[in-house]
Amino acid sequence: MLSFNEYRNLVNDAILAIPYPKQPENLYEPIRYTMGMGGKRIRPVLVLMACEAMGGDVNKAVEPAVGLELYHNFTLLHDDVMDKADVRRGMPTVHRRWGDNAAILSGDTMLSMAARHMSHVDDDKLPAVMRLFNDTAIEVCEGQQYDMDYELLANVSVADYMEMIRLKTSVLLGCACKLGAIVAGTGEQDASNLYTVGLNLGLAFQLQDDLLDVWGDEATFGKEIGGDIMNGKKTFLLVNALAMASDDQLAELRRWLNDEYAVKQEKVAAVTAIYEQMGLKQLTEKEIVAYSQKALEALDKVKMPDEAKQQFATFIQDLVGRDK
Amino acid sequence: MLSFNEYRNLVNDAILAIPYPKQPENLYEPIRYTMGMGGKRIRPVLVLMACEAMGGDVNKAVEPAVGLELYHNFTLLHDDVMDKADVRRGMPTVHRRWGDNAAILSGDTMLSMAARHMSHVDDDKLPAVMRLFNDTAIEVCEGQQYDMDYELLANVSVADYMEMIRLKTSVLLGCACKLGAIVAGTGEQDASNLYTVGLNLGLAFQLQDDLLDVWGDEATFGKEIGGDIMNGKKTFLLVNALAMASDDQLAELRRWLNDEYAVKQEKVAAVTAIYEQMGLKQLTEKEIVAYSQKALEALDKVKMPDEAKQQFATFIQDLVGRDK
Repeated sequence: MLSFNEYRNLVNDAILAIPYPKQPENLYEPIRYTMGMGGKRIRPVLVLMACEAMGGDVNKAVEPAVGLELYHNFTLLHDDVMDKADVRRGMPTVHRRWGDNAAILSGDTMLSMAARHMSHVDDDKLPAVMRLFNDTAIEVCEGQQYDMDYELLANVSVADYMEMIRLKTSVLLGCACKLGAIVAGTGEQDASNLYTVGLNLGLAFQLQDDLLDVWGDEATFGKEIGGDIMNGKKTFLLVNALAMASDDQLAELRRWLNDEYAVKQEKVAAVTAIYEQMGLKQLTEKEIVAYSQKALEALDKVKMPDEAKQQFATFIQDLVGRDK
Repeated sequence: MLSFNEYRNLVNDAILAIPYPKQPENLYEPIRYTMGMGGKRIRPVLVLMACEAMGGDVNKAVEPAVGLELYHNFTLLHDDVMDKADVRRGMPTVHRRWGDNAAILSGDTMLSMAARHMSHVDDDKLPAVMRLFNDTAIEVCEGQQYDMDYELLANVSVADYMEMIRLKTSVLLGCACKLGAIVAGTGEQDASNLYTVGLNLGLAFQLQDDLLDVWGDEATFGKEIGGDIMNGKKTFLLVNALAMASDDQLAELRRWLNDEYAVKQEKVAAVTAIYEQMGLKQLTEKEIVAYSQKALEALDKVKMPDEAKQQFATFIQDLVGRDK
């Protein structure tokens, strides 16, 4: 069994070894740039970990793991175009640097490159791998569409928000776990439980992300604190606040959110204070624990060596307890 | 053996039967709209025709054929965003009607839907089908990148232009023919020859498109004549003109192309006159015949019933002799 760092190194070495054609340079340079931005490599590490935990050959999981990371980075690239985001991981986004067209086309290429790497599995695994990958990719698009739709709505229910992050974020972590299991030749029951592990981990992960945007430490988190508040982004905190607020709280919240000329620090502090007053920090932390718990319960049902199970559990706890 | 119309009807019925989820509506409505725009369905018809010609069960080729048509329409959708095109097949483009973001995301979804339909083949055919599809999709992106790159260059060689249209347009017709062959269980040699048939047909097809933009009949062609000239688009005619022009011709050509305030009819007539003076209509017609000839020669090497071969040959001749 390898350590997290060893899995991550395997992934990073394989990403460095992706063969990019020299030409057309304007197509492949943005892809190389995107894949070189780094990141936690959570999804491909999950693929490798799941594969080895289920008794598979980790080397056979490296190519599909790289495929999944290419896929994930493709979604970030296109999302950045749609969100008009300027910065990603401290660097200018592709569309800022090369323009929208380059970002669209390089992204399209990455999606097909992802499928190509994904298909480097034993022939008898390919049907299940392709079904999982295509189903997941379509769900992620649905999630992104709901996310964009919800930005235009005054109110989004907590249930709709959870369904949106299930599609946009969580199914990809479910896919990562199940992908490793399929490559290892795991039976349907265990593979399906591993999918549930990843799915719930993904939900906890996204709520933690929402939390860190408000209460994280800017230096550690690596992103500006309060970005979601400034953008009026629908997060777990905001949709709960809108659902639970008294008339007075609602009026104050809307006043701050609609105030485009407010000083940033004041606006973030005021909205944060409302969230705290409503007990939303505790509520979110409780939900994060609940989803991690569901992940651990699903993990418990999977037949794998204790040592591997322990490593999986540590990974889950590290990820949902993270401060960056 | 079915007739062209019967193949087309099979394809259109299957396209009508694509199961679109009801939600999110903003994601699936643009896809349904795009697939309902019609079109010649050349690529899926080629898939079915090749499959049956090679002794396969045409019903097994319908799903991958629909996948290829979804893929083709995805490329048109994203190309229209990149080219800022307002109209496609006489209707407003998706990004004009629903905005750039909807066009990007619906396109992404179509690419994954394409892969999903494509993978509905017998398990033993899947590795070859996926390899062909992913390789082709990446080449098409490369072609689109060259096309965009070349728009910014003053001069593009004829060889570079041919390589660009090989990637952007022709490999997809090669893919269509080979896909049908793979589904039919054809051996590598015949499948490869059928790829060559489609590839050369694709080159002839694109040159015919360039030709029709200048000398087509607007009512029959269904597109505005002279669109390429007005947009200063690098076509087979323009790259040849730039390569072969005398100093005087070059000066005149550049003067017209750079004149943004010229009256449309005058500009199109003037550039067309230069092309005619240089004998470019005949040159292009000669090239179209040459590429069709190559397609027919490759077809001749394929072992298939005479009747099927005759049908294929007719399809090729109809397509390159088309006036719309």
